[in-house]
Amino acid sequence: MTQTVQAIGEQELLKRLQAFCPAEVVGDDAAVLSVEVGKSLVVTSDVLVEGVHFSDQTTPPQAVGWRSAAANLSDLAAMGASPLGITVALGLPGELLVDWVEELYRGITGCLQKYETVIVGGDICRSPIITVAITALGQVEPANVIRRSTAQIGDAILVTGFHGSSRAGLELLLNPESAKELSAADRASLIQAHQHPNPRLDVLPFIPLAKRVEDNPSSLPVSGMDSSDGLADAIVQICRASQVGARVDRAAIPIHPALRRWVSPEKAMNWALYGGEDFELVLCLPSASAQMLVEKIEGAAIVGAITSDADIRVVDPTGEMPDEVLSLEQGFQHFGRD
Amino acid sequence: MTQTVQAIGEQELLKRLQAFCPAEVVGDDAAVLSVEVGKSLVVTSDVLVEGVHFSDQTTPPQAVGWRSAAANLSDLAAMGASPLGITVALGLPGELLVDWVEELYRGITGCLQKYETVIVGGDICRSPIITVAITALGQVEPANVIRRSTAQIGDAILVTGFHGSSRAGLELLLNPESAKELSAADRASLIQAHQHPNPRLDVLPFIPLAKRVEDNPSSLPVSGMDSSDGLADAIVQICRASQVGARVDRAAIPIHPALRRWVSPEKAMNWALYGGEDFELVLCLPSASAQMLVEKIEGAAIVGAITSDADIRVVDPTGEMPDEVLSLEQGFQHFGRD
Repeated sequence: MTQTVQAIGEQELLKRLQAFCPAEVVGDDAAVLSVEVGKSLVVTSDVLVEGVHFSDQTTPPQAVGWRSAAANLSDLAAMGASPLGITVALGLPGELLVDWVEELYRGITGCLQKYETVIVGGDICRSPIITVAITALGQVEPANVIRRSTAQIGDAILVTGFHGSSRAGLELLLNPESAKELSAADRASLIQAHQHPNPRLDVLPFIPLAKRVEDNPSSLPVSGMDSSDGLADAIVQICRASQVGARVDRAAIPIHPALRRWVSPEKAMNWALYGGEDFELVLCLPSASAQMLVEKIEGAAIVGAITSDADIRVVDPTGEMPDEVLSLEQGFQHFGRD
Repeated sequence: MTQTVQAIGEQELLKRLQAFCPAEVVGDDAAVLSVEVGKSLVVTSDVLVEGVHFSDQTTPPQAVGWRSAAANLSDLAAMGASPLGITVALGLPGELLVDWVEELYRGITGCLQKYETVIVGGDICRSPIITVAITALGQVEPANVIRRSTAQIGDAILVTGFHGSSRAGLELLLNPESAKELSAADRASLIQAHQHPNPRLDVLPFIPLAKRVEDNPSSLPVSGMDSSDGLADAIVQICRASQVGARVDRAAIPIHPALRRWVSPEKAMNWALYGGEDFELVLCLPSASAQMLVEKIEGAAIVGAITSDADIRVVDPTGEMPDEVLSLEQGFQHFGRD
């Protein structure tokens, strides 16, 4: 099928895209949704631009869709919120194939279905380049909101899974010949991490439990955010917002076995800290609570602790690798061994 | 000030734009809002693209911002919903002046302040062209939702104000020399209508009253939408969704005196029906209720009635102008006098 957006026109395109939305939200100026009594509404917006956030080489339209939806659902998860739905506003060149747009929607709804949510509205308009603007809506009990600004000195820092895999998957797509020695299965799992990341909404049911563990008598909120801009960035943002420091154990950061098999430990660690787009959660909470989460969430690990220091220090207990020190003002800087 | 977006960088730009947002919504992955108990959430998204929806000639950045916010608030008004806030996701070229972006935000917040609402979140990213994606959130009592699909045969069709003014304002901006005879005040009011339209949120308090007027014993919902794509389009969309016809009285359509003074009645009527972007409400409701609204809302007028016909007919009671007949399948068609 080689029909273009221009050839079928806006009305027909809208009709085709409405097939991806629940019937009850189609046909009015806006969608009507219900927020459960006692819950707060959570809202987040993201925009992806062709050539900046995705390209044909690394991201087929289905994956662009999945990743856009996943990034927004991950922002909801980072706030502790369950999804109510998303809106999709598209800017599309007239010469774009309708197939491309439908594949994009298949990717979006594929991700949404996995998390039992839907497209509740949107807009399409003409644009010289493809832009995908998504707004995700969620709901959360006010007591369970996860904020960046409430990390406490002594809290454990927990990550919900592997870091560096998305960056590794991107590298495999950009330079396939660079990993000839890697098995097909290893390649596939890293590429999967890049193209079809999983927002960690599955972690949310454990948050209220973590707050009730006995070393947390005051039921302090769990602090945290997602690692969409990299694990290092997440820890920096949390420390800045909470006005605390942190100590991170390099060896404790979960790295996918395929990535370990492929590149040097230094490169793997670099991608884990700075690669971004792993869409895991980085949570700060009392250590017994964190321990409980590690037992409940496969792949989760405690990677460090919140401190009263004025900086964030990534240390290697074996002493083999130099410390990496992060100034809260300027971001990470690579220091020599001190 | 001639700093570019690129020169100050994303972090600094975000910091400047956060000055336009309430402090409590800044700094997390998403914003947390409250929906009142018993109300439904309403959500709508729009995207504007440079060169498609605005250009420097007709729309300074402040007006781009005002119009973007107004269009989204108008979609809320069209559903009967009061605003909770909007998110703004921007794609920006690096060489764009920071002043442009701040003027855009001044326009957005200028419009929002008038309707006592705020920016609650957003995103900025690099893009070869300017794109402005706005999502508006509102709340409404479920019984007061205004839908397109519930117009009843016999309902009066009410419009809340002038039509054609926005199109006239655009013409004045594109061809200033075409209206030399028009007074400065007349020009200003038409340009104002184009650059700073007012979403009709002020009409909403009257909707529950209109439902209780005695000729509406079953308290049927008020049907309607906004006239953002033109008055003709609004009537067509309502009739299609409600599976009814309509008869519209050409002479009853409110047209701004400045527009009457400037162009021929034919041209004024053409702009009123098809010009678009007047952002008035087009409501269908029992005629005593409509009469009550006409008394309450300055500038509102009853322009026709919902019928059991298979078409929509714009008629001239004086017989001077030919009927204009709209087929529900194909849109408006210009017929000869019949």
